[in-house]
Amino acid sequence: MATQVNVKAAIFDIFGTVVDWRGSVSRDLAAFAKDKGIAGVDWLAFAVEWRKLYQPSMEEVRSGRRAWTILDVLHRESLDTLVARYGIKGLSEADLDHMNRAWHRLDPWPDVVAGLNRMKPKLILAPCSNGNISLMVNMARRAGFPWDCILGAETARAYKPMPEAYLASCRHLGLAPAQVMMVAAHNGDLKAAKAQGLATGFVPRPTEHGPGQSTDLAADPAVVDVAATSFVDLAEKLGC
Amino acid sequence: MATQVNVKAAIFDIFGTVVDWRGSVSRDLAAFAKDKGIAGVDWLAFAVEWRKLYQPSMEEVRSGRRAWTILDVLHRESLDTLVARYGIKGLSEADLDHMNRAWHRLDPWPDVVAGLNRMKPKLILAPCSNGNISLMVNMARRAGFPWDCILGAETARAYKPMPEAYLASCRHLGLAPAQVMMVAAHNGDLKAAKAQGLATGFVPRPTEHGPGQSTDLAADPAVVDVAATSFVDLAEKLGC
Repeated sequence: MATQVNVKAAIFDIFGTVVDWRGSVSRDLAAFAKDKGIAGVDWLAFAVEWRKLYQPSMEEVRSGRRAWTILDVLHRESLDTLVARYGIKGLSEADLDHMNRAWHRLDPWPDVVAGLNRMKPKLILAPCSNGNISLMVNMARRAGFPWDCILGAETARAYKPMPEAYLASCRHLGLAPAQVMMVAAHNGDLKAAKAQGLATGFVPRPTEHGPGQSTDLAADPAVVDVAATSFVDLAEKLGC
Repeated sequence: MATQVNVKAAIFDIFGTVVDWRGSVSRDLAAFAKDKGIAGVDWLAFAVEWRKLYQPSMEEVRSGRRAWTILDVLHRESLDTLVARYGIKGLSEADLDHMNRAWHRLDPWPDVVAGLNRMKPKLILAPCSNGNISLMVNMARRAGFPWDCILGAETARAYKPMPEAYLASCRHLGLAPAQVMMVAAHNGDLKAAKAQGLATGFVPRPTEHGPGQSTDLAADPAVVDVAATSFVDLAEKLGC
């Protein structure tokens, strides 16, 4: 917090930081299942299991064992795994595609849109997410995020926390890493960004993983330049 | 025009189609020269000569003779060539960088912002330009273009009219080429897009090259699906 921060752009983690993936995916799938007459599935547990397959699926790409593959494809493979595991029958290709796009329809935390709109006149704003471009575009149009461009994994062709995901985002903005703040609710993401020279901003999301969450409840002072309580508070702390 | 068009996204050529590069660059450089006390340069001629070096500089990259290089770098090399050719002395590195960024400060044609805002609720909107991401972001923030993301050469790592520049833009939106309209004031750009299966929209810019312009005064019916008189007219023709 002692660090003087004077950045020209802020780039944002999305899943967990900007949007509530757990609540949104489970609500979306539950509503769809009701329409389709699918009963007996705990969609909150399903959403959590889906998310658990996220890191392992990206690790195949990060390690080089698998060629560059966007998150929509990884999400779909994980969905197919879970649909089989849960023994859900009778889903068409269109049904599965609709379910997979639940990740395009995530709801923001309540402070996000107001905070981003306050930052917008002063700062260039972009996601720096592992989500692919179309996922980010569709989410932003639905939720009203005022991004200036879509950065992150697909633009960089590298998944966070690989250095290239952060460095490409700065390069694509024509800015030095120190001119760009990475904003996340996850200290690990910020540690990786700081290692590449970016400024860092933390906003806690203590219910991202539900009521019993024990991780990332507070900023790690070793990696966080600016700790805020919300996106609106972050905007204020950045002089917006 | 007989073609039924039902697209989900419109992607736009920028230099000439959305912005008046000739008028803007010459005005920008003339104002800078006046501040710096540089006299005796015809900045309209200078801007036209700068633009003449555009295609040859990209051709080095398209041909594979040169590794991927963004337009800001190519513009700067061309600027250095012209500054030497005109014998302009006493420019600092910061001066040259400011002049090079004249391409980030281009003014739109008067119908553009109204037309884009009318399209925005129905269509995903993005540039598909040979300009790099930061150039597009800075231009859009200054002029108020409501892009959903920045597509084009840097995202595709290919300069138009190479097929990959158009195909990557569709792929990044998660759409088939037939679901995307390429909009340009240049029949050649639209011919290349149509060859990849995109829908095409033409808006004439009969003074892009000045009062004596003889090219691209009208849509080529062999390559244009929708011919409009302005961006507002195009929005209407697309049912926006």
